[in-house]
Amino acid sequence: MRLRSLRTLVAAGVLLLGVPGLAAAQGGALAQTDFALNTLWVVLAGVLVLFMQAGFLLLETGLSRMKNAGAVAGKIIMNLAIAFLMFWATGFALGFGDGNNFLGSTGWFLDLGTLDYGAGGGTEAFFFFQAVFAAVSLAIVYGTMLDRTKFGAYIIFGILFVGIIYPIVAHWTWGGGWLAQDGFLDFAGSSVVHLQGALAALTGTLVLGPRLLKFRNGKAQPLPGHSIPLFMLGVIILWVGWMGFNGGSTLAAVGQNFADVIVNTNLAAAGGVIGATLGSLIMFRTLDVSQMGNGAIAALVGITAGCAFVDPWAAVVIGFVAGIIAPPIVVLLDKIKVDDPIGAIPVHGIAGVWGTLAIGLFAPAARTVDVDLGAGAGLFYGGGGQQLWVQFYGVAATIAFTGVLTLVVWLLIKWTIGLRVSETQEMAGLDISEHGMYGYPEQFIEVPGAFPESTRQSAGMVASAPPTTTTSD
Amino acid sequence: MRLRSLRTLVAAGVLLLGVPGLAAAQGGALAQTDFALNTLWVVLAGVLVLFMQAGFLLLETGLSRMKNAGAVAGKIIMNLAIAFLMFWATGFALGFGDGNNFLGSTGWFLDLGTLDYGAGGGTEAFFFFQAVFAAVSLAIVYGTMLDRTKFGAYIIFGILFVGIIYPIVAHWTWGGGWLAQDGFLDFAGSSVVHLQGALAALTGTLVLGPRLLKFRNGKAQPLPGHSIPLFMLGVIILWVGWMGFNGGSTLAAVGQNFADVIVNTNLAAAGGVIGATLGSLIMFRTLDVSQMGNGAIAALVGITAGCAFVDPWAAVVIGFVAGIIAPPIVVLLDKIKVDDPIGAIPVHGIAGVWGTLAIGLFAPAARTVDVDLGAGAGLFYGGGGQQLWVQFYGVAATIAFTGVLTLVVWLLIKWTIGLRVSETQEMAGLDISEHGMYGYPEQFIEVPGAFPESTRQSAGMVASAPPTTTTSD
Amino acid sequence: MRLRSLRTLVAAGVLLLGVPGLAAAQGGALAQTDFALNTLWVVLAGVLVLFMQAGFLLLETGLSRMKNAGAVAGKIIMNLAIAFLMFWATGFALGFGDGNNFLGSTGWFLDLGTLDYGAGGGTEAFFFFQAVFAAVSLAIVYGTMLDRTKFGAYIIFGILFVGIIYPIVAHWTWGGGWLAQDGFLDFAGSSVVHLQGALAALTGTLVLGPRLLKFRNGKAQPLPGHSIPLFMLGVIILWVGWMGFNGGSTLAAVGQNFADVIVNTNLAAAGGVIGATLGSLIMFRTLDVSQMGNGAIAALVGITAGCAFVDPWAAVVIGFVAGIIAPPIVVLLDKIKVDDPIGAIPVHGIAGVWGTLAIGLFAPAARTVDVDLGAGAGLFYGGGGQQLWVQFYGVAATIAFTGVLTLVVWLLIKWTIGLRVSETQEMAGLDISEHGMYGYPEQFIEVPGAFPESTRQSAGMVASAPPTTTTSD
Repeated sequence: MRLRSLRTLVAAGVLLLGVPGLAAAQGGALAQTDFALNTLWVVLAGVLVLFMQAGFLLLETGLSRMKNAGAVAGKIIMNLAIAFLMFWATGFALGFGDGNNFLGSTGWFLDLGTLDYGAGGGTEAFFFFQAVFAAVSLAIVYGTMLDRTKFGAYIIFGILFVGIIYPIVAHWTWGGGWLAQDGFLDFAGSSVVHLQGALAALTGTLVLGPRLLKFRNGKAQPLPGHSIPLFMLGVIILWVGWMGFNGGSTLAAVGQNFADVIVNTNLAAAGGVIGATLGSLIMFRTLDVSQMGNGAIAALVGITAGCAFVDPWAAVVIGFVAGIIAPPIVVLLDKIKVDDPIGAIPVHGIAGVWGTLAIGLFAPAARTVDVDLGAGAGLFYGGGGQQLWVQFYGVAATIAFTGVLTLVVWLLIKWTIGLRVSETQEMAGLDISEHGMYGYPEQFIEVPGAFPESTRQSAGMVASAPPTTTTSD
Repeated sequence: MRLRSLRTLVAAGVLLLGVPGLAAAQGGALAQTDFALNTLWVVLAGVLVLFMQAGFLLLETGLSRMKNAGAVAGKIIMNLAIAFLMFWATGFALGFGDGNNFLGSTGWFLDLGTLDYGAGGGTEAFFFFQAVFAAVSLAIVYGTMLDRTKFGAYIIFGILFVGIIYPIVAHWTWGGGWLAQDGFLDFAGSSVVHLQGALAALTGTLVLGPRLLKFRNGKAQPLPGHSIPLFMLGVIILWVGWMGFNGGSTLAAVGQNFADVIVNTNLAAAGGVIGATLGSLIMFRTLDVSQMGNGAIAALVGITAGCAFVDPWAAVVIGFVAGIIAPPIVVLLDKIKVDDPIGAIPVHGIAGVWGTLAIGLFAPAARTVDVDLGAGAGLFYGGGGQQLWVQFYGVAATIAFTGVLTLVVWLLIKWTIGLRVSETQEMAGLDISEHGMYGYPEQFIEVPGAFPESTRQSAGMVASAPPTTTTSD
Repeated sequence: MRLRSLRTLVAAGVLLLGVPGLAAAQGGALAQTDFALNTLWVVLAGVLVLFMQAGFLLLETGLSRMKNAGAVAGKIIMNLAIAFLMFWATGFALGFGDGNNFLGSTGWFLDLGTLDYGAGGGTEAFFFFQAVFAAVSLAIVYGTMLDRTKFGAYIIFGILFVGIIYPIVAHWTWGGGWLAQDGFLDFAGSSVVHLQGALAALTGTLVLGPRLLKFRNGKAQPLPGHSIPLFMLGVIILWVGWMGFNGGSTLAAVGQNFADVIVNTNLAAAGGVIGATLGSLIMFRTLDVSQMGNGAIAALVGITAGCAFVDPWAAVVIGFVAGIIAPPIVVLLDKIKVDDPIGAIPVHGIAGVWGTLAIGLFAPAARTVDVDLGAGAGLFYGGGGQQLWVQFYGVAATIAFTGVLTLVVWLLIKWTIGLRVSETQEMAGLDISEHGMYGYPEQFIEVPGAFPESTRQSAGMVASAPPTTTTSD
């Protein structure tokens, strides 16, 4: 599926025309400009996607109780470290190296001698862009598992997920694998990134079980997060980052329709907020702010697959549907006692499936898709029933492969080093039990000099002396 | 004022000269590169402006009391949804469609067949950029009205403001309307965006009345916000976003002086911090941190109109003045019992007027302004007295139109569905009374498992059982 | 440096020059495109670096106790104001003006008639980029001095540091000064920016002394910051901003290897997280989240000097080492009773030295460095022992010059207006004692209407009536 670099193409074209001297030099110079411009877009879009980690930090910590807020921070920074190192070591090669229909097998440790993504902005820019995508997929997993998962278990899972599982499905769809060849379309990863992350989250929470206190007397009770402002800051940062996530998936700037993608993405998100607000009113008889924020994210996930293919009105519809179905699914998960603290399953999973299938419903038939790389490159696709069928089995294959593999990994972790902290640790909170210090120390322990007067002490707020001897303050 | 696309121009020029083959192809290729580069700048600048919503979230929630912090979050995400959907449906057409001197009338629902902003980065990029501007103007309104406004009332106002009121003034100035034809200059919207938002905020707070407890025994008392760190994070994000707001208003990159705009914008903001620090020392005998932050914003508003026209030293002066006058205006508003919790009236309103007029004082005469679109395109303007007069009546017209219309809308809302929550709801806080859950639940209610020990309960901190049955935690 | 609009150029060139001129006009047009593209990269990279101020705000406020959190916010916004105004007035001229081997002496107040950085993106873009670098260096200083430094003293230091000290070392390395001529390499400022900031922090804390309560009975005790989520948000924002910091230091886009720089920077940061996690486990027997975050920053500082020169595997090693040595240095500083609340000395100082020296260890010999400006321009350098020696004495010269000068400035401030607040003020916190209001008022005083019920009052949480009469709420 890969094309030679634009530089090569232009150079070849100019030389074939037999125009000497200046014109050729001009062509080469312009090709260099185009290459720089494409690189710039891919790199800056990647920076926006990198910034989404701040969004996940805030969304997840905002929906955690204060005693677990620091642990989320630790996980997110480790998430980034794992994603970059493993995608460099193996993920990029498995996903985007030359190989067969199932996986790639060149380019380990970004060996530039064995792979060439010269199109668009060059291999290094493309690697960066794909690495931050993998980091997003992994970040999705943790939210559903927060408040009760061992730090070490998460590291092991992350290594296997980014290093092996995620890139294989990426290869199928974006690396020239079998789904790409069948015409499966997933422009920026409703399935590749979001559904995979949500599947790992689902199998993870099934193996882990719900948080303590979540289900009491057979009924779900709310365990509200500690900070809606931080949660919503996370939502807006994710929205902003999605401009790079979807827009940058054109993988080049020159001759690409990324402004269309940007318009569709924003209109969908807007539709999602409206949808989730209505859904919240219907299901909960209230304007639940966390549902409204999650509605935006669900819509962004939903439009991710089709943002380059559909018309603006369809983007609004896709986003609206993704938003309005999230609240009922939250209720359903509570009913069947699946504990998903941040709503990753409806927001990244269900909306990911919906968005991938929606291409078959809303994309006009026979439209050229201008992307340098990936399944849709220069493709006239059929739309309608045939396309819907391809979309369906692409989703099904992703669910089967990633669902089974992540389930196996979680079970192996559970049976060996253990996946869940002890009840005592969970009640104490992961901050103090896994990281030796609260994320908000002044809320729980006596911090020297924290209070000008001795009012808090006199009010009996102090639990105990600092339980740690670390000097890393 | 609108030009056909650069692509068309270049292609036409080359073809007219009768240069065949390669040269034309080269010219076409370069035009495509330029188009991509211009689109990239407008889109990325728009992303920075989109990010300003995070700034408003933080600035406004930081200056709210904890019991209202979640409601701010709900309003901001709804703000984005309304802005995109209404600007898509009607705002863009009224503002930038073909029409008469008063309003545009083509391009409803971004109908690309009936309008063409091919210059710069194309119509879709331009739409995105203008839509996020409208979202900024609407976001300004809420800060002044926080802690006491009904969520539903705000939605209705937002629909009318973005859908009808805001774009009409935008058309006058940026869409080729009567003010543009008179030579009125407002490069990035000191008046169009900021003054309009502040006017809606002013009429809103006049109709609403002050927050409970704000004025007691005839004297203003401080109702300090709950988090200066979040407030200041908001200020810095707004400062960062303003790089796109002002810089991107060149509406193209190639041949544009956007680096000058960036330098002026930053120097002005720096001057504003110094001004507000002095103003705070003079008025309050203290280094008030919220005044310092607001001084930066006031200066950014002040330089917005003239950032492409003035010299760096003048930018510093404009920013300094905008900053130093803000604290006295805060005192004045307190004296006349106008309650403006975040200072939007001095920061966006007075500074907006000042910045628009300052062009007449500081812009050198007879300077070419290189912008593709808008009033100043390719214009040699007169500067001095004549320009000052145009600036003056442009501001006056904006005040008259937007002031009257927003006042009418607020009054109609008040007389029908009601604009203000009940006293009981206001005292309880909007989070719990309008959204069913606190933004910081652990500060107010017993969250299951929130505290490792039973210290808080023993200290009598728990108000009551959770007053909501939502399961969306 | 300003060019007329492309429209004018194209029209004029094509119409006036006719066919033979067309090729030349095309070349000119392409040069204009390249100029715009380079400007765009430098400006956007500068915006990312500007955003790093939000990172410093959060990192520093997160590691402060709540009573000092608002003061950090005040310092950061003043930090930006000082940096822009002083770099405009004198810093840019001393650093990058024409002059001698020791300092520059043209371009005061950005006088474009006397200096020309036309390469890359033009003088204005280059000024902006360098000004935000200076702002980063100054921001580093405050973290080590927080909780006890007078606001006024910090302003005076900042003026001298950005206006005089910092730019002189910048001139040596990046302005064509003696270190540049000797072949000293510091691509994006491990020494120029980070080591200088850390030296000022070190001399500052030595003159100030440790925070009250930090060392009791001869032993360091933890004074943990109040919010790990805000701290980690700061870390991620800094990581994101570093994409501009290192990437933008190519100072142009066309023909530059900025994607390589981006890849190296991210891999190093990932290595730093792993290193610091191990270091924390070894030194503290815990997964300290603040160490993990600081490990990322240390690695980013470490790779800053060499990011354009080394291979990806070397970037991982450089980052890993920077990360793993940070925790032992934290312990060492505690042992010798140097109080560094945020760890700027290990993270920006030691890692800055390490990163600068590492070029001599890891950079392949005889590699061309493609940068438009600065020491490495088109340079084939020797690598190995000779390079290591140059790196060594470049670091030594920086330490000697900046260490001595900042020490002198701090001592002069101490002996005149005083550097440290009183013990009473420090115990009360800088928010209330220097700025007249708490950063988190509801945690300390009775804010009118803050609590729906009278629970907090009944719990004895209210210290006193608001101690301020400011009306700036």
